[in-house]
Amino acid sequence: MSKSDFGLIGLAVMGQNLVLNIESRGFRVSVYNRTTSTTREFVEANPGKNLYGADSLEEFVDSIERPRKVMMLVQSKAGADPADRDAVDAVIGQLVPLLDEGDLVIDGGNTYFIHTERRSKDLEGGGLLYMGTGVSGGEEGARKGPAIMPGGPAASWEMVRPIFEAISAKVDGDPCVTHIGPGGAGHYVKMVHNGIEYGDMQLICEAYNLFRAAGFSAAELAEVFGRWNAGDLESYLIQISGKIFEQVDPETGKPIVEVIMDRAGQKGTGRWTVMSGVEHGVVISTINAAVEARVLSSQKEQRVAASSELAGPSNETIADGGPDKEALVAMVERALHASKIISYAQGLDLMRRVGGTYGWGLDLGAIAKIWRGGCIIRARFLNRIADAYDRDPELANLMLDPYFRGVLETCQADWRQVVSLAVRSGIPVPAFSASLGYYDSFRSERLPANLLQAQRDFFGAHTYERLDRPAGEYFHTDWPEVIEGQ
Amino acid sequence: MSKSDFGLIGLAVMGQNLVLNIESRGFRVSVYNRTTSTTREFVEANPGKNLYGADSLEEFVDSIERPRKVMMLVQSKAGADPADRDAVDAVIGQLVPLLDEGDLVIDGGNTYFIHTERRSKDLEGGGLLYMGTGVSGGEEGARKGPAIMPGGPAASWEMVRPIFEAISAKVDGDPCVTHIGPGGAGHYVKMVHNGIEYGDMQLICEAYNLFRAAGFSAAELAEVFGRWNAGDLESYLIQISGKIFEQVDPETGKPIVEVIMDRAGQKGTGRWTVMSGVEHGVVISTINAAVEARVLSSQKEQRVAASSELAGPSNETIADGGPDKEALVAMVERALHASKIISYAQGLDLMRRVGGTYGWGLDLGAIAKIWRGGCIIRARFLNRIADAYDRDPELANLMLDPYFRGVLETCQADWRQVVSLAVRSGIPVPAFSASLGYYDSFRSERLPANLLQAQRDFFGAHTYERLDRPAGEYFHTDWPEVIEGQ
Repeated sequence: MSKSDFGLIGLAVMGQNLVLNIESRGFRVSVYNRTTSTTREFVEANPGKNLYGADSLEEFVDSIERPRKVMMLVQSKAGADPADRDAVDAVIGQLVPLLDEGDLVIDGGNTYFIHTERRSKDLEGGGLLYMGTGVSGGEEGARKGPAIMPGGPAASWEMVRPIFEAISAKVDGDPCVTHIGPGGAGHYVKMVHNGIEYGDMQLICEAYNLFRAAGFSAAELAEVFGRWNAGDLESYLIQISGKIFEQVDPETGKPIVEVIMDRAGQKGTGRWTVMSGVEHGVVISTINAAVEARVLSSQKEQRVAASSELAGPSNETIADGGPDKEALVAMVERALHASKIISYAQGLDLMRRVGGTYGWGLDLGAIAKIWRGGCIIRARFLNRIADAYDRDPELANLMLDPYFRGVLETCQADWRQVVSLAVRSGIPVPAFSASLGYYDSFRSERLPANLLQAQRDFFGAHTYERLDRPAGEYFHTDWPEVIEGQ
Repeated sequence: MSKSDFGLIGLAVMGQNLVLNIESRGFRVSVYNRTTSTTREFVEANPGKNLYGADSLEEFVDSIERPRKVMMLVQSKAGADPADRDAVDAVIGQLVPLLDEGDLVIDGGNTYFIHTERRSKDLEGGGLLYMGTGVSGGEEGARKGPAIMPGGPAASWEMVRPIFEAISAKVDGDPCVTHIGPGGAGHYVKMVHNGIEYGDMQLICEAYNLFRAAGFSAAELAEVFGRWNAGDLESYLIQISGKIFEQVDPETGKPIVEVIMDRAGQKGTGRWTVMSGVEHGVVISTINAAVEARVLSSQKEQRVAASSELAGPSNETIADGGPDKEALVAMVERALHASKIISYAQGLDLMRRVGGTYGWGLDLGAIAKIWRGGCIIRARFLNRIADAYDRDPELANLMLDPYFRGVLETCQADWRQVVSLAVRSGIPVPAFSASLGYYDSFRSERLPANLLQAQRDFFGAHTYERLDRPAGEYFHTDWPEVIEGQ
C-alpha cells in the first residue's frame, strides 16, 4: 500500500473534518487517536476514502511518506505560565522518538504561543521541523475550507504549502493561507484573530441590546441584519446573527434567541489576547471590554439579584422619546462600523508591536487577506484593511488610513449619539464606549496626564518632563507640605 | 553595645525614611546597604540617633537581637513569570546562611505576590519566618507613618506587631496596620491598593480634563478641588491636586500643571492588578481603563500627529452651550463620586475572590480601615467602606450596601449626563465610562449574551443553556447552512 501524504493525530470533530477536507483534495491521510475505537469508527464511517487508520503511533508513523508531515489536533491546556505542560507535550514526547530527521510536526490547536516558541526550539534542536498553526472556521470551516495561519521555519512552510493551499478557503481565487512567520507567530496571530472575534461578537450584541430595548421583534432584527449584510457590515457574524433571529424554538414556538440563557462561555484565547496587550503595553480596550462583558454575563445570579437593588435612570429615553426605529437602525449601523474599525485598529497594533518585539516580520496586509475567507471574522471589511496596507505597508494605525479616517469622520456623529443615548438610557455599551474612548484619546494632542505626573511627583518624587523641554529631561518640584484635613 | 531591635537592608529614600521612623519610636535599628559608603553617609548624617551601620552582612546580622527581624527594601524586578528571579532572591541567598532558626525576613518592597508565595515556602521550610509586606505612603509616609500591609504566618505578625503599630499612621487612634493573611496576601493587597490608586488618579484626571475643556483656569480648579476636599470626595489625592493647581512654575510664571508633559509613567503594579483580574475572571474595568489611559498618554508623538488627522465633533458642547461652570462642577463631583465607588467595588471584589481562591481569609473591612491613613488613597470615603463591611461582613459587592446604593442612585443622573456630555464633546472619559458600564451591566437582569451564545453554537457547536431550564443543561440547535454572500 502506498504511504500517506499527511498524518493527523486527534480525531475530535475538528480533526475528522480536517482529515476529510485534506482527503477530498487528493491526498492520502493517516489518522491516529488515543482511543483506538474512535480511529476504527472514523475510518469505517468513511468507506472508499483514501485513509489509513493506525492502532499505534509506530504504525501511524510508518505509514507516512518521508519527510513526514504530522499534525496534532489535541486540546492544549497550558496557559500563561511558561512552566505549564499539557497533552501536546505528551504527544510530542511519544511521537518524536519515532520520527526521522527532516520530519515536520504541526500543532493545529489553539495553543498559547509561548509554548509553541518553546517546542519549536526543542524540536528544531533535534533536527525536526515544527509549526504552530492556527486554524479558524469552526467545524464547518475545517471541512469545507478554513483560514490557516501557519508559523514556523520557511522550510516547513514549503513542505505543507501544497496541502494547506488546497484545503483552505479561497477568496477571489486566493487561498486563505500564508506563511505568517517563524516560531509562535502563527499561533499568536490566531490568538489575536480570536480576540478580534470576541470584539466583533460583543459589538453585535450591544447593537442587539439597543434594538431590544427599543422594542424590536426578532423578525425585525432578522430584517435589519439581513440588510446590514448587504452593506459595509457584510460579514459571516452579521449573516449568522440574521439567521439566528429567524430561528424558532420548536418547543415554545418563540424565537430561539429569546429562550437562550444570557450567560456567555469563553475558552482562553480572548483572555490571552488581553494579557498580551497588558504585558506589551498595547491598548486593546475594545477586545478587553468584550472579555469583561462575557465575564459579567456569566454572573447571572448576581445580576438578577442586583437588578432589583440598583436603580436605573428614570427616563428610558431609548424606548420613549428616542429616535424612531429606522433612524435608530441607521445610527447604530454607523456606531457599529466605527467601533469595529477601532477594534481592528487595536488588534493590528498589537500584532505590529508584538511581532516587532519578537522579530516575526508580520505582513499585516497579507494577514487581513487570509482572514477574508474561511474564518469566523471573514468580512468584506477585510479587503479594505488589505487595501490600506497596500497603500502604506508601514501604516502606524489603521485609523490613520485615508479610507478608514473618512469612515470614522462620517460615522462619528451617530456613534456619539448612540453611546450618549445608551448611557442616558441605562443600557450598557462597554465595547462601543471603549472604542470611542480610544478614538478620542488617540486624537487628543493633550491628555490630562500632566496632572497625573504632578501627583506622582508630589507623593513619590517620580519627576516629570516639561512641554517646553526635550523629552528625556526630568524635573522635580518641591511641593508644599500637606497637613491632614486641610 | 546593645543589640538592635530591627534590621533594614537597602538605603534608598524609602529605606532611609522608614529607618528614621522606626528609630524615632524608640527602637535601635541596624542598617546595611550594598554600597558601603551609602551606609556610612546615612549614619553620619543622623548623629545621635540609635542606629548601627554595618559594613558587611555578617556584621549586620550579628548586631541584631534574636529572634532577628530583618526587612529588605530592594527593588523587585521579577514579574508575572514564576521563573523570574531578581535582587530580592539574591539578598535572600546571601542573608539566609547567616540567620538562625526563628529569625524573620521581611520583604517591604512592591513584589509581585507569586514570588512572595514562593519565597515564603522556601524559607519556612528552612525554619525561618517570611513576611511579604506592602508599605504605602511614598517617601513622606515612610518617614511619618505609612499604611502597612503585612502578610505571613501569625507568629511573624506577633513578632513585628509592636514595631509596625508604632511606626504606622494612626486614624482615630487606630494604627493603619493589620495582619492581612498568610503567604502573599500582604503583597497582593498592596498591589490592589496600587491598582485602586491608578483608578482614583485617572478619575481625577478625567474630571480635570472636562473642566479644562470648559475653560476653567488653574485658580478656579484649585478652588473647586479645595471645596471638594471638604465634602464626600475628601482624600489625599484630591487635596494634593488642589495644591498642584496652586503651584506656579518659577521659570515661566505659569501654573506648573500647564507646563508638565502629559505623558504618564507607570511601574508594574497597575498592570499586575489588571493581569490578576483577567486571570481570575474578575472585572476591574475602571482600573483597567486607568492603566490603558496611562499607556495612551505615553504615545504622545502619535497623538500629536493624529490630532490633526482624526476628526472631532463639530459642536464642542462642553465649551459652548453646555452647563454653566457651577452646574458642571456639581455634575462632575457626582460622576466622580459614583465612578470611585465602582472602582472600589471592583478592587474589593478582586480581593474577595482571589483571596478566597488562595484561602487567605481577607477581612475587607479591616483592609479598608488601614487604608484610611498613611497611604496614597487615604480618604474619608474608606470609613464608609469599613462601615459597609461592619454591617455585612459577607457583602457580595460594595454597590449593594445600602449607603453606597443610595449614593449611586443619587449620583446617577448627573453621572450619565457627564459621560454623555463628554462623549458628544469628544473628550475621552474612559474610566468614567467603564465605571458606568459596569454599573449598568451588573444591574442588567438580561444582557445580550444570549445572542453571543447562539453565535457560538452556530459556528462551533458550543451549546447553550436555556432560560426555562436549570443551569447546567446544555442544548444545541441544528442551524441552517450558510451560503456565502446571502
